[in-house]
Amino acid sequence: MSMTLALQRSIQATPDAVATVFHGRRRTFREFGDRVARLAGALQSIGMAPGDRVGMLGVNSDHWLEYMMGVWWGGGVLNPVNTRWSVPEIVYSLDDSDTSILIVDDHFLHRVEGIRASAKRVPVFIYAGAGEAPRDMVSFEALIAAATPVEDADRAGTDLACILYTGGTTGFPKGVVHSHWTLWSIGIQRLAQTPMQGDGVALHVAPLFHMGGIGRALVQFIAGETHVLAATFDAREVLQTIEREGVTDLLLVPTMLQALITHPEFDCFDLGSLKRMVYGASPIAESVLERAMAALPGVAFTHSYGMTECGGATSNPPENHGAEGRASGLSRSAGRATFGVVVKVVDANGQEVPRGEVGELIVRGPNVMLGYWNKPEETARALRDGWLHTGDGARMDAGGHVFIVDRLKDMIVSGGENVYSAEVENVIARHPAVQACAVIAVPHAQWGEAVHAVVVRKPGAQLDDAGLHDHCRSFIAGYKCPKSIEFREALPLSAAGKVLKRELREPHWAGQSRQVS
Amino acid sequence: MSMTLALQRSIQATPDAVATVFHGRRRTFREFGDRVARLAGALQSIGMAPGDRVGMLGVNSDHWLEYMMGVWWGGGVLNPVNTRWSVPEIVYSLDDSDTSILIVDDHFLHRVEGIRASAKRVPVFIYAGAGEAPRDMVSFEALIAAATPVEDADRAGTDLACILYTGGTTGFPKGVVHSHWTLWSIGIQRLAQTPMQGDGVALHVAPLFHMGGIGRALVQFIAGETHVLAATFDAREVLQTIEREGVTDLLLVPTMLQALITHPEFDCFDLGSLKRMVYGASPIAESVLERAMAALPGVAFTHSYGMTECGGATSNPPENHGAEGRASGLSRSAGRATFGVVVKVVDANGQEVPRGEVGELIVRGPNVMLGYWNKPEETARALRDGWLHTGDGARMDAGGHVFIVDRLKDMIVSGGENVYSAEVENVIARHPAVQACAVIAVPHAQWGEAVHAVVVRKPGAQLDDAGLHDHCRSFIAGYKCPKSIEFREALPLSAAGKVLKRELREPHWAGQSRQVS
Repeated sequence: MSMTLALQRSIQATPDAVATVFHGRRRTFREFGDRVARLAGALQSIGMAPGDRVGMLGVNSDHWLEYMMGVWWGGGVLNPVNTRWSVPEIVYSLDDSDTSILIVDDHFLHRVEGIRASAKRVPVFIYAGAGEAPRDMVSFEALIAAATPVEDADRAGTDLACILYTGGTTGFPKGVVHSHWTLWSIGIQRLAQTPMQGDGVALHVAPLFHMGGIGRALVQFIAGETHVLAATFDAREVLQTIEREGVTDLLLVPTMLQALITHPEFDCFDLGSLKRMVYGASPIAESVLERAMAALPGVAFTHSYGMTECGGATSNPPENHGAEGRASGLSRSAGRATFGVVVKVVDANGQEVPRGEVGELIVRGPNVMLGYWNKPEETARALRDGWLHTGDGARMDAGGHVFIVDRLKDMIVSGGENVYSAEVENVIARHPAVQACAVIAVPHAQWGEAVHAVVVRKPGAQLDDAGLHDHCRSFIAGYKCPKSIEFREALPLSAAGKVLKRELREPHWAGQSRQVS
Repeated sequence: MSMTLALQRSIQATPDAVATVFHGRRRTFREFGDRVARLAGALQSIGMAPGDRVGMLGVNSDHWLEYMMGVWWGGGVLNPVNTRWSVPEIVYSLDDSDTSILIVDDHFLHRVEGIRASAKRVPVFIYAGAGEAPRDMVSFEALIAAATPVEDADRAGTDLACILYTGGTTGFPKGVVHSHWTLWSIGIQRLAQTPMQGDGVALHVAPLFHMGGIGRALVQFIAGETHVLAATFDAREVLQTIEREGVTDLLLVPTMLQALITHPEFDCFDLGSLKRMVYGASPIAESVLERAMAALPGVAFTHSYGMTECGGATSNPPENHGAEGRASGLSRSAGRATFGVVVKVVDANGQEVPRGEVGELIVRGPNVMLGYWNKPEETARALRDGWLHTGDGARMDAGGHVFIVDRLKDMIVSGGENVYSAEVENVIARHPAVQACAVIAVPHAQWGEAVHAVVVRKPGAQLDDAGLHDHCRSFIAGYKCPKSIEFREALPLSAAGKVLKRELREPHWAGQSRQVS
């Protein structure tokens, strides 16, 4: 299985159907396929060998999907770069994966100089923007125009397809490695779970560099239906696009869903085309879900729980979102394991706990990653006897429904982004005035969770909120920086000298229906 | 991916749901899973090592599905034996695949002595019948009762899952090798293509030893729904079972479908539960399809075209079976490539022919077999550059819809003109007095080959050579009309319900230097 087969099928069967819509630009599968085959040839001509990594640093666009299919068509491997990242974070992922080519759009040109200055192996930069290519960059459009279309390289099966960098528990991002086989499983599972009837116009508004976005794009390619691209999330523009393009399918993180339904002009648009809404990536407040379902009465809601390491692991279908599901509490569950997948709730020794008790959720199936790039120890910790250890605490009812209740890994999910406490703590600890610190999740009405730092200053040292925030911002992405900071005399420690984060969290989470502790 | 994960998921989530129904016997997923884990342990205790082949010689039953999952659970590989075969054919497949254990039901006990006398390696025989186990055979039930349940052996991915023997063009059967990955793709593709809504009660009446039957069983296991088993095809019993068990899903070959809708008691049963009908494995006469759709107005019809080597290759969905599809001719097509699959129509040099022209259909996708067991030359002929060569003649329209014209080897070349049997058969079948027919090539001194028709009249109907010839001449060119016609009481059918054209041809070609078979 090569993911490009899905595109070949559309080029053959529905060449004149619309493949991509980005602002005013519409391209058919024939046009899209031609550009992909040319881009593949162009990438080969500038040195992409089979298995070589090619990065993309850009917002969602039709070019992003051309990059995705073009790299695969030419035999390469994707390294989709998180657009929120600072230069050191981007450079880490490029160096770690030995990425040889990096495509950059207009939004991230200002990162190029920094990357060039610090990357171990300076990549070839391709400019995929609207204007003239800057000096020292090759133009995406010029490359495509000049290239000869090549045949599909037919990389398939267990061949590498992508490396997706995600926050690392040790403070460094980890590259999650997927093959064409695992991506195929992630896509076709989701399509079987949430079938389309030959009518699917999907609006990709969740970022494509995340598994959520890339997985949804795979579904759309396998089904051979239309992709509409939103560069970034803007509630009004999403509403307008649904009406204009007759969008049927949306995948949103809860914060986006909330912004959508609470937008003052929500009632001014005809959203009657919308059929299916998948939400996930972070916990949703019951009030948001209920309000969304009331606001979009004709829409089938599905909760997808998953992660970069496995795509969708469980799925809570529309039938659990009705009155019955709300009464039984199933509307608050993450649903059952997706087709072909088994999940278990286990104790620290890997033994399954009795139903109803909390343990770590583990996942096994055709969708699970091959491992972490160049990180055998982290891979061995995450994949034990073929089981992916999620680090999430969960309980399971008698019917196999999973309820995510806790996070065992020290991680904060803020607005759909994973933030590892260790990474933020490392950055804070570098400040000369800091003696000790702990970073925890606190509840946040808009983002689900927010990053909160508890800091102990060195005796006599001066440091305030603004100073610490500036310090953090120079090293890490904005979404990772503490939204609130609390200065204390000391941190509560266990007998073994570990920071008792539960004690730090408790006052913040008291009275919340969903506890993260 | 191990196919047993699908079963694990059901044991966990719906342990009390009905897994199998066979005559009066109903077992839940908990019971079925327990028997599977015990059978796996029993098979290991009598010598089944990881990757060992285990055969099943039996009609459809719940034991057949226990065999399927039990062998996989214990780490073995299936060799499902064609029940129509003679002892030499069975022994050939056992010897070729080095099958070490053979399960036999009551219907095939009479084969055991012959197999024991001639197999190179005499397998351990397990008796899976209703009575006492014969001497020298181990009892299936006693094994399960005495065994300790074992853990799933977790064979997965590219590990071998089954060897399905299929007729060989050289006269010897070929073992089609599938892995857990390819079977997973065959099952999940079909589920995505013909989704169930948590309500699927499938009646398995097509033989499970064929890809059609085993593929349908996989879908049911992945979806986690109920399997109802019919030992053999009996139209009245099928009608009765649909009513009694609330069957929603049926997969039938055209001869079975025809027998069902023409059964004198068809109107005596409530078939209102039936939702989805998949037909395939051989061409269907338009008149049969139209009559079936009229007789079952609430049922969604899907045509699945495929073969042992790849499961489903194309799929013609319900929307092409409506009035519009009949008007446009799409109801007669095999549909488009299934999700993730690409098909092409090529000439003898492997070059794609223009749309509308006839060539050989080739298939590429995650569902394609690994190859033929121990037959590198036949594998190389069938799999060229990753493309499976089907040997079927087809044409493709501008929309990627495939029309199967005929088995290339069944094509009749008469006076330099190509005649496709299916076309002539469709015309003959339209005659109101015709119940069934087959068109074959017979030797002809002047034209090389001549078109010969074997026809079964409807009971009590009048039809002679002249009348049928006039009928044909009014629809097709003279060279396509049968030069000779033979009336019979019945056509010889394979276990899968396919007309055995080879048997029809043999007497005509005996003593000829060039054989068409």
